[in-house]
Parts: sequence; structure tokens; C-alpha cells
Amino acid sequence: MIAEVISVGTELLMGQIVNTDAQYLARELSAFGISLYHQTTVGDNQKRLVEAIETAFRRCDIIILSGGLGPTEDDLTKLAVAEFLGVPMVTDENSKKALQARAVAFHWNMTPNNLRQVEFPLGSIILPNSCGSAPGCICERDSKAIITLPGPPHELTAMFELSVAPYLQAKSNRQLYSRVLRIFGKGESTVEHELKDLINAQVNPTIAPYAALVEVTLRITASCGLDDDPKKLVEPVIAEIKRRLGDCVYSDNDEALAHVVARLLKEKGKTIAVAESLTGGLVADKLVEIPGISKYFIEGAVVYSNAAKERLGVSAATLSTYSAVSEQTAKEMARCIRLRAKTDLAVSTTGVAGPGADEMGNPEGLVYIGIADETGERAIKLQLGGNRQRTRMYSCLSALNQVRLLLEATRSN
Amino acid sequence: MIAEVISVGTELLMGQIVNTDAQYLARELSAFGISLYHQTTVGDNQKRLVEAIETAFRRCDIIILSGGLGPTEDDLTKLAVAEFLGVPMVTDENSKKALQARAVAFHWNMTPNNLRQVEFPLGSIILPNSCGSAPGCICERDSKAIITLPGPPHELTAMFELSVAPYLQAKSNRQLYSRVLRIFGKGESTVEHELKDLINAQVNPTIAPYAALVEVTLRITASCGLDDDPKKLVEPVIAEIKRRLGDCVYSDNDEALAHVVARLLKEKGKTIAVAESLTGGLVADKLVEIPGISKYFIEGAVVYSNAAKERLGVSAATLSTYSAVSEQTAKEMARCIRLRAKTDLAVSTTGVAGPGADEMGNPEGLVYIGIADETGERAIKLQLGGNRQRTRMYSCLSALNQVRLLLEATRSN
Repeated sequence: MIAEVISVGTELLMGQIVNTDAQYLARELSAFGISLYHQTTVGDNQKRLVEAIETAFRRCDIIILSGGLGPTEDDLTKLAVAEFLGVPMVTDENSKKALQARAVAFHWNMTPNNLRQVEFPLGSIILPNSCGSAPGCICERDSKAIITLPGPPHELTAMFELSVAPYLQAKSNRQLYSRVLRIFGKGESTVEHELKDLINAQVNPTIAPYAALVEVTLRITASCGLDDDPKKLVEPVIAEIKRRLGDCVYSDNDEALAHVVARLLKEKGKTIAVAESLTGGLVADKLVEIPGISKYFIEGAVVYSNAAKERLGVSAATLSTYSAVSEQTAKEMARCIRLRAKTDLAVSTTGVAGPGADEMGNPEGLVYIGIADETGERAIKLQLGGNRQRTRMYSCLSALNQVRLLLEATRSN
Repeated sequence: MIAEVISVGTELLMGQIVNTDAQYLARELSAFGISLYHQTTVGDNQKRLVEAIETAFRRCDIIILSGGLGPTEDDLTKLAVAEFLGVPMVTDENSKKALQARAVAFHWNMTPNNLRQVEFPLGSIILPNSCGSAPGCICERDSKAIITLPGPPHELTAMFELSVAPYLQAKSNRQLYSRVLRIFGKGESTVEHELKDLINAQVNPTIAPYAALVEVTLRITASCGLDDDPKKLVEPVIAEIKRRLGDCVYSDNDEALAHVVARLLKEKGKTIAVAESLTGGLVADKLVEIPGISKYFIEGAVVYSNAAKERLGVSAATLSTYSAVSEQTAKEMARCIRLRAKTDLAVSTTGVAGPGADEMGNPEGLVYIGIADETGERAIKLQLGGNRQRTRMYSCLSALNQVRLLLEATRSN
């Protein structure tokens, strides 16, 4: 089966955004064993859009269009599909009701152009949008399919998983199984180096590494006939990777680090507080993102200035003798927030996010993570490279990772 | 002048990498006033590559190919260009000498396939590679140009800046000017509704709206001859948009809201502190992201639990009478953090991020933003829709926006 991806949007052709949708779709199609020979980007222009669909329809079985489902005049994707198929646009009443309910729930006023989002080429299979207001659709013709998806990445991926993957699965006679390992504490090239023989030798399952800003993920994907069990292919490979990378692998199920920490806090019945300097609320934010965390995450202090550190309880002598970026300050920050919030654990961050060294001459990228529990306090030192954003994000995840390692070694309350 | 970008590489069609080259080239072409109507990605397949060049050559003036200049058998881009032009491949002796010198300097052994990198379609203008071993080339035919660049992003950008930009500038007689307006407090469809006549009527400059999670941006782009001033086309349109949207427009220069707040704090000589419940450190984080903020942002408190709110100084009576999600609690949070941190201003957030109502029956999406200054405290109420992530992000930007509005109305210290 051959597919083609057509990305729609003048913002792509102006270079205002990078086309992550095309990468996502390419990866997913590849995982289904569907060949992708062409990906094309066209602007918000109906004539060129229809031509792109005509060209793709001649040479493939499945066309996936992304983008151009918004409510405005320059959102033309569905109109182009209808023109290509020679069918009229019709309103889908269920989608209209869902849109009206969404407008009420989100407290916005429907304008007439919103209704464009619930009109589809006649005969479409409607794909509900769980994250936005624009449903997608599938139009079938001559045993081929034209699949139209929204452009915003979180809407596109949710719709793909919910509706398109099962549709493609039903057309395919293979089954696919993927697991995502998440890794903190080793860079992409180190991970690749340590797994090089595995990555090169593996055909089924495949091992695909992806690097985010400060993390590495590995996607392990097996494909087999409908009567076999793809898990049996994947699990021995995961075991071998974990054996090699050790406790740097913090999830074998694509769970974010803050979620692992939240789950461990709950499992072990422990509470936590956070005192942050260079991460400035980022660690607290990662925890507060998680519903139901309020029983375990008790309090955070963003003590960016020295005055705020002193108000938290860090001694003026520590700040003047060792400076704000020191093992001593990190430990005192963790101890003080733990005592204030009366929690089992506390974690702190202090460091130089840059650009440049701080006023005390501490170099850019020098960071201390403090940890406190009932046994006392300790701190680890990091010397990071990269820009301000990366230093802050790495420090945040490093703080969460220290909490994870401590909790994994902790007995339950 | 019309251009077309052809990205070459099976790794793109497998989704192993995201196509940042396409974005870079799109942005650069746009800055030269060169129209890009199509971007196509094809794999390492000579037949499909030649077809893509044929198609592009029919409909544009400049083709830029990226990728496929490596030494291996599946690097076919220059061969495809030669096949399309009907010319042989010839070795460029200068490039060969440079490659040999590079092999010595980098301590690697040249293998016969390395020499493929210094063979070019007959008649090529050679583009030296300052960061890698594969030079690029320009082939001219019928007043059109086929430009071939390496795939690795740092090599591509360096070669573009060094050789391609001057080549394009010499061909271009237009200049382009863009400004980005950023808007908070009105959704995309409302903005479009209020500007519909402008957006539809404008040809030069164009007005292009884009929606992020909770913000809307408008890009105003004018194009004119080298002797004219494109700013004169853009500025009256910006003035009219501001007149219609009022103080919802917080930047006419693509400045993020936190940056506007940081700039205003500095300009007015004011300090700030933050007390956060549902935003859990997000407001503090947005401020701490900005280098040099420590003189103005003094302290943050993440008081997610009621115990933490009481430790900050919110009275138990307020929490029990009005609940944690109330105007009274928001005001007390702002007052208490302002007094603790001894700042000019303070802002607070409290609300129900969801999913679902809170234990006191406050509905999901109910949020209060508190503001305190030397004149006292006040709070605004929001009823938001959407998921937890959107509610928290909207509340964060709403808090920053309240600070912005207050600072814009404030005299300097």
C-alpha cells in the first residue's frame, strides 16, 4: 500500500512553523508498513491544492491531507477535496451539535464562519476531534482513501490515534506493536553508541532513537501477522536495553518523568515540597500539571533573589561565604522548604542559567540539586552546556530524576 | 520570482528526522520576496527525483534541492539533476583538492566513493561547503536555476548564507517587510470576525492570522520595489487593527507577553511577586525565563494546598467561608505575597484546572486572578473551557496580562 502526505498551509511555505505533522505521519505510516514516496506542501490556494490531490491520487492508494480545516476563508482543504471528487459540501448535523456544545462549554460565541468547520464533502466518514473544534474526514473513491486531518499537532496526533490508525489497521493484514522507552542522564549519541550493534542488527522489532531537548526516547516497534504476538518480539529487546542503560531508563511505557514521580509519591505515600532558584517554578509546574497531585505536592517556593532565599531560611552567612550557587545553599534550600511545608521529601535547584557567569564568578551552567528527607540533606553538582532554556529544563528534569531515584529506593509508608 | 524546494531523503519519508531545512529555506526565500508555492519531499530514488525536478522546472524559476550529496550509493541528487539536464558528470579539480586536504586534516582515509562528492553536472557553479565534505552546485538553464545543497542543517544554512543568498539577491528586485502583532483576550474566530473586511481586502500588505494554544498572532507582510519603503504600507494597517482590537494587542513586534511585562517592570522601575495555586509555578517560570529579571521578580510562592495558602497568610476563615477558589482568596494571596516579598506589585492565581469540579463544588475552569499594589487588592473572575493544560496556560497568561495592563497605566517610579 502506498500513501502520500499533503501538508496544507501558507505558514509552512513562509517558514513560520516547522512541519512536525509530516514527520509524525511519516513515522506512523512507516510503522504500519505503508510506503510513503512523496510528501508535498502547498499553500492555502484551492487550485494548487486540487492539482496536488490529482497528482497524488494517480500514484498512491491513501492520501493524507493535514491543515486547512479552520473556520476562516483561507481554510480550503475540504473544498479542494470536494472539487476533486465532484461532490457538494454538506453540513454534518452531529458535528454541528458537538460544535455548538463546545462553544457553550468554552464560553465563546459561534460566528457564522465556525459552521464551515462542520461542512464536509458529501459521503465523508467524519472523524471527531477530541482536542479542537475541527473534525476531520475520510472520503473513499475507487478503493482509495483521502483522509483530511487538522493541522495543530496535538489535534492531528489525537485524531490519528483515535480514528485513522484503526482505519489503516483494518486495511492492513499486519499488526503492529510499539513501546517507547524514556531515558534521562545519557545523551543521544551515548545511547546510540551503547546500543549501536542492537540498532543496526534489529529488523523486527526496529529500534528508533529520538532526541528531545534534554531527553532521549527509543521506540521499539514490531510487526507481525494477525495470528502472532508482537509483544514476544519486543520484550526481550527492552530487557536487553534496560540491562545496558541501567537506571537511566525511567519509563518503558512513554511516561513523562513528572508522571513517574507523581505515581511513585502516591505508591509510597510520600509528600514533597520544592524550592527553586534557576528553575523558577518549572519543577513545581511539572508536578502541578498532573491531576490529583495536591495530596502529595504540598508547597513550592520560587526564591530567585537572595532576599527570597533568606526569607525561606537560608542563612546570610551561607549565601555570603559559599554564594547562592553552592552545595551548601542547595542543601539549606531543601531543608528549609521541607521544614516549612512539613513534607517527607524536598528538592531544590540553584545555578547559573546564563548567559554568562554570575556576579560571584560562578560559571554559566553550574547547577546544584539539593535533596532533603528524614535522614538529612545532600546535593549533586552539574556542569551543563547549552543555552539558558536547556540549562533550566535539564536542571528541572534532573531535580525530578533525583526524586525518582530516591523514591525507587524508598520503602512505602 | 517563484521557487520550489525539493527535500531529498528516505529518512524524511520514514519520519526519522523533522524537515527543518524546508522551514529554513522557506523563511529565507520569503525574506527575499520569492514566492514558494510547493515544497516536495522524495526518497533516495533517481526516477522519482528526476520526475520531481521535471514537475518543478515547469512551474517555477528556482529549484532548491536539499540532501543526497553524501558519498554513498543512495546519494543521487546530482545524478538526477544531470539526467534531467542531459549533461555528463565531471570532476571539479578544485573541490577534489579541497576534499583531499580535508581528509588529511580530519585524519580519515579517502575511499573511492568519496570522489562522488566532487563530481557535478557539467557547467555547474560550485558552492564550497565550509562545514562539511560535500560542495553544492548551481545549474542554470533557460534563465532558471537548479540549486543543490547538502542536507545536514548546519551545512545547508552556512552554504545558503555564503553563496546562495548573494546569488538570489542579485536576481531579485523586490523587498519584503513583516510585522507580527500578538493578541491576548480574543479568540481566533473573534479576531477574524472583527477584521474580516480588512483581511479579505488586503493584498499588499497581507494579513495572516495564526492561533497558538491561547493566543492569536497576526502577521502583516508587505512587498515592494527596492526604491520604496514597505513600512509605509504596513504601518497604517497596524494602526487600524489596534484601533479595532484595543488593548488586546499587547505587542506589535512579536514580543511574548512575559517579555512585555519584564520590559514594563524595568521601564517603570517596579518589582513583583507571584502567588500561584492552579498555575503552580507557571507564571514565575515565564518571568524567570527572561535573563536579568532577578532585580524585578523577587519571589514566588506555589501554594497549591490549603495548608500552604495558610502559611502564606491567607486566613483559615477566608478559605472555609469562601473556599480556596474565590475572589477573597485570590486577593489575600496577592496581598500576602506582596507583603512577604516587599514588592510594588503582586499577582495571584487560584482556580479549578480540572478535570471536574473541586471538592467545594466550584466548577472546572473557574479561575480568579488577584492583583495587589500600594492602593490595595482586586480580583478578576474567569470562566474558562478546555482541558487542564489550556486552563492553566490561559490563567498564566491572564495573570501576566493583568500585570501588563496595570503597568501600562502606571507612572514610572
